[in-house]
Amino acid sequence: MRKKCVVCGREASIVIERARVGFCKEHFLEYYERMIKKTLKKSGFNGGKVMVAVSGGKDSMALMYALSNVKNELNIDLMALHIDLSIDNYSKESRNIFEKEIKKLNIDYIIVEARDYLGASIPEVVKLVRKPACSICGLVKRWIMNKIAYDMNYDYIATGHNLDDVSTYFLKAMFTYRDDDLLRGNEVISPPRPELKMVGRLRPQIFITEKENLFYCEVNEISYIDFECPLSKGALLKKYKTIWETALKLNPMSQYNFTRSILSIREKMHRDDIKLKPCKICGFPTTASNEICSFCKLKEKIKNSTIDREDR
Amino acid sequence: MRKKCVVCGREASIVIERARVGFCKEHFLEYYERMIKKTLKKSGFNGGKVMVAVSGGKDSMALMYALSNVKNELNIDLMALHIDLSIDNYSKESRNIFEKEIKKLNIDYIIVEARDYLGASIPEVVKLVRKPACSICGLVKRWIMNKIAYDMNYDYIATGHNLDDVSTYFLKAMFTYRDDDLLRGNEVISPPRPELKMVGRLRPQIFITEKENLFYCEVNEISYIDFECPLSKGALLKKYKTIWETALKLNPMSQYNFTRSILSIREKMHRDDIKLKPCKICGFPTTASNEICSFCKLKEKIKNSTIDREDR
Repeated sequence: MRKKCVVCGREASIVIERARVGFCKEHFLEYYERMIKKTLKKSGFNGGKVMVAVSGGKDSMALMYALSNVKNELNIDLMALHIDLSIDNYSKESRNIFEKEIKKLNIDYIIVEARDYLGASIPEVVKLVRKPACSICGLVKRWIMNKIAYDMNYDYIATGHNLDDVSTYFLKAMFTYRDDDLLRGNEVISPPRPELKMVGRLRPQIFITEKENLFYCEVNEISYIDFECPLSKGALLKKYKTIWETALKLNPMSQYNFTRSILSIREKMHRDDIKLKPCKICGFPTTASNEICSFCKLKEKIKNSTIDREDR
Repeated sequence: MRKKCVVCGREASIVIERARVGFCKEHFLEYYERMIKKTLKKSGFNGGKVMVAVSGGKDSMALMYALSNVKNELNIDLMALHIDLSIDNYSKESRNIFEKEIKKLNIDYIIVEARDYLGASIPEVVKLVRKPACSICGLVKRWIMNKIAYDMNYDYIATGHNLDDVSTYFLKAMFTYRDDDLLRGNEVISPPRPELKMVGRLRPQIFITEKENLFYCEVNEISYIDFECPLSKGALLKKYKTIWETALKLNPMSQYNFTRSILSIREKMHRDDIKLKPCKICGFPTTASNEICSFCKLKEKIKNSTIDREDR
């Protein structure tokens, strides 16, 4: 027997397994945007200037659209940011999609190129540094997002972290005994800390799955980049995602419950405030004992390297 | 290529995947007993009067033997306890095995029957009460173990909780959002609290797998009950164990790391001391607000019931 839409009784177009409910397309959109609003409000969000970081993937494209639809109700002054990472066709295509879609929405946007900040493209840096590509790219994006939002006086950066991402990050942290990783980030709201030049973070999709983001894009006819970043192949986090396939068959709420458990445990933990200091070079916050942030260290390394620049 | 014994270089008889080492039979026994000693010592165990609870299964049989072998080094005054649960052939066979094996060891022992304390056998109670059999049986065993060890002036009860059990218990707690369950028990040592009539608990096998316990029994030619309790069929916890099959293929340390993560997180948590009070009926500790413990409630229910007793 096919599921019916829990709202109108028509045939369901999507089933949300963890809640055991189905929705038709129309009521799915309502549900999705209600989830975004509820997640933010329950975490105490009161509105503000929000810069949504859009890679061009399904998660952040869905986020940009949904925030654009609910921005008035949430009292959000919204703007979009796309960072061009210069990863071959992947970045070209991502940028094209972003530019095409942003024009359908009535919001300001900015596009920046990572190499303008870093002095080299991500593929060049990945060749130079013995670290996983996703980890390098992550730190570069975090620094650039914070710098731009801070310089433009935004309160928050909103990112498309979904339930699959966050639950897998936590699972990996526990399966590799890096329990300090359980304490950091990945919450719905990290408040702005202007005294540290740190813009706040919003993760409104933390309880929404990849599958729901995908469907939100499809129903709204939003384009998104549908191939993977060529540098992320074999990323460890992707392997851990397969564990959820087993777990979700057993208990469709397992992923959601696991994530809520971590966030709830965290509330009860003694969290030694991580000591952040301004980086001696860029002035943005760092935990490094020599007070030089990872981004500036990387930039320094690039400056002193002899790699051929693709664009020279 | 077959693994070799990490100690002597002979062909390995068992591989400990999480440590990526192999052992011949002789050096496995050394490793196994070293693990038991190390686990207890690292948790601050200083010796004392220990009553090992032996069901007849591979885990507790291995524990009884290992503790008997290391008791002098650990300054343990050791005694064994078997609780006959009157679960058909399963209990008869378990008791026979216990009686046969205990005679090989130079330690005192006691056998008690659960129905003498409860007023009915476990199968009778399971029919009467709408709770999973394992949960009823667990509470009955915990009460009886504590009573006997307390009355005999023992400091600790040692139980055969293994890594598979404990990790699965924690995983289930997180996947069902019962994060309070993460705070209770399942640690290597729970110290005695004589003021509450509470005997301490030792769980020396918490970082040892089922597979290792099985092999320890085989190498030592220890008999054990090799069929499952007929009442535990379909127990939810067993289903969750299948998740580890997937996870261990990906990362052989995942189960060990996950368990260590929980125990480490717990240390950092604000644990409101659970308020224990003496049960108004039996005097042993309870958290119940009406100050009547689960065991006495169950006993009361049995007394007032009209079930036919098998043994009348």
